[in-house]
Amino acid sequence: MKTKRLFTVTTLAAAVCSASSMIVQAADPLPSWNDGAAKESILRFVADVTKEGSSGFVPPAERIAVFDNDGTLWAEQPMYVQGFFVLDRVKALAPQHPEWSTQEPFASVLKGDVQGFLAGGERAIGELVMATHAGNTTEEFEKIVNDWILTAKHPKTQWLFTEMVYQPMLELLAYLRANGFKTFIVSGGGIEFMRPWSERVYGVPPEQVIGSSIKTKFEPRDGQPALVRLPDINFIDDGAGKPVGIQMHIGRRPIAAFGNSDGDLQMLQWIASGGPHFCLYVHHTDAEREWAYDRTSGVGRLDSGLDEAKVNGWTVVDMKSDWKRVFVCEER
Amino acid sequence: MKTKRLFTVTTLAAAVCSASSMIVQAADPLPSWNDGAAKESILRFVADVTKEGSSGFVPPAERIAVFDNDGTLWAEQPMYVQGFFVLDRVKALAPQHPEWSTQEPFASVLKGDVQGFLAGGERAIGELVMATHAGNTTEEFEKIVNDWILTAKHPKTQWLFTEMVYQPMLELLAYLRANGFKTFIVSGGGIEFMRPWSERVYGVPPEQVIGSSIKTKFEPRDGQPALVRLPDINFIDDGAGKPVGIQMHIGRRPIAAFGNSDGDLQMLQWIASGGPHFCLYVHHTDAEREWAYDRTSGVGRLDSGLDEAKVNGWTVVDMKSDWKRVFVCEER
Repeated sequence: MKTKRLFTVTTLAAAVCSASSMIVQAADPLPSWNDGAAKESILRFVADVTKEGSSGFVPPAERIAVFDNDGTLWAEQPMYVQGFFVLDRVKALAPQHPEWSTQEPFASVLKGDVQGFLAGGERAIGELVMATHAGNTTEEFEKIVNDWILTAKHPKTQWLFTEMVYQPMLELLAYLRANGFKTFIVSGGGIEFMRPWSERVYGVPPEQVIGSSIKTKFEPRDGQPALVRLPDINFIDDGAGKPVGIQMHIGRRPIAAFGNSDGDLQMLQWIASGGPHFCLYVHHTDAEREWAYDRTSGVGRLDSGLDEAKVNGWTVVDMKSDWKRVFVCEER
Repeated sequence: MKTKRLFTVTTLAAAVCSASSMIVQAADPLPSWNDGAAKESILRFVADVTKEGSSGFVPPAERIAVFDNDGTLWAEQPMYVQGFFVLDRVKALAPQHPEWSTQEPFASVLKGDVQGFLAGGERAIGELVMATHAGNTTEEFEKIVNDWILTAKHPKTQWLFTEMVYQPMLELLAYLRANGFKTFIVSGGGIEFMRPWSERVYGVPPEQVIGSSIKTKFEPRDGQPALVRLPDINFIDDGAGKPVGIQMHIGRRPIAAFGNSDGDLQMLQWIASGGPHFCLYVHHTDAEREWAYDRTSGVGRLDSGLDEAKVNGWTVVDMKSDWKRVFVCEER
């Protein structure tokens, strides 16, 4: 929900996913990473913090790693996956809202007029989010997300969105966990939009997902205790909100952070100003296999972050040259 | 910070703690519990949810147990431990605040005039909390709490507050964890007041502590990124706030909940309205070894909760008859 350019939809050639998403922990724990500086820096960091008696050793309890989601663990182009969810939900809810046929921004969404609802700016997007995310209970919303994510497909690839997860990052998550790390997601996306599938797709349980949220209220629904989702922002887990969200949920400073945009910059700064640490940016450089974008992109802009990574010696993954394979759903 | 009667301090006879707090996981996993209905109900529940193939089986990932802190894991009489912390901090900070010598509620605190500052009601308590909890960074506050809790003693027993933890509850925490449970604290107390010592004392890491909080802001301090604690309430994790806090931090419904007061009632209701579950109230019935209080107590009132426990068949621990030993710091 970060920018006005959220809804720049393009529909390109489609393909069908047939690859297995099995992660093989062979001799090489990161088989989808090409040999090079990025991969080496990861292996070296993990070796350092796990070597008992060394100066860089970090006890397992403090091995906390935080991952951004959109653009870091799965694709975020041409718009955030949650944006597709919002549009689909407006269509699904339209029969209960006859007034939407003439009321903006809903009318434009229902007509498929992207420019029309984008004209409403951030306020229009806020209205769409609240109309599709609030009013139900936490359990109802969880079911809605679950039902949607099991069938919703990316307009370009026609793969399920959960198949457009980066295979090298899945290997990295598994590698860190195998070395005693606890892995968290710290995303600007909705916390309850990610939790229904984060464990299945990333191996990250709901209690290790941090994200943006709306307020909830404990009150009876149909005579049963329920948590009702209210149309009020509770927390925005983006930019300077990310260190705040990390402190709120984790309560200690992680030692490794992974992002891909300026929205992750403060998170990386926070981790970098602690003790032994590792910071990594995924740089989207592969227009052929994924998308190429950075300093001027509306979605996932990486500008100050790229400069600061150079100054601080953070690892920058060149997707095109560092990744042997991009998506979990891909045969190579 | 729950009631106006927070500061009803009494100073009684003192003793010295010399007992070891070692937990022995012998044939009996709950050696400090007397045989009886309460202990049996715990053992039966754990046997049920861990028996694969049984109708009550719960997969390990969903074995989430939530514990209130004050009055459930450690003593809360004659006032919440965090109340003693507030008073000590006012005294420690007084030299930097000469104006406090004439300004209420600080002047009364500094004179030891309990009735004086209680006259200010909830607003006075709020002022004391903000003056002692905000303005510093998260790391500075952590150090302040750590330094304090390592030496601060209970006025009645002269034991460290962390020695006034209930031995039977420590055994219960360990027993649940040994059976695949993830244990969380869900307290009305300050989240950052508990995190510095929760792992050492309860085996509960900071990321599994949920509590009340003030807002924080990410901004540079002395040229370094910092999280600065602001004098604004962020979240009150009490009463109907507890299910909200649970959802925010855990994202799924726990299957076991442990409390001791009406402030835990909605938490127990929330857990009880799910699938297989276990709800338990600690009833303070032992005036000799601890304190006896329930329906009319200012601190830790248990009134509606006691009624609802009976109606719903929740386990009610009679501290006097169900616990062989009360405190971790006790020789018997």
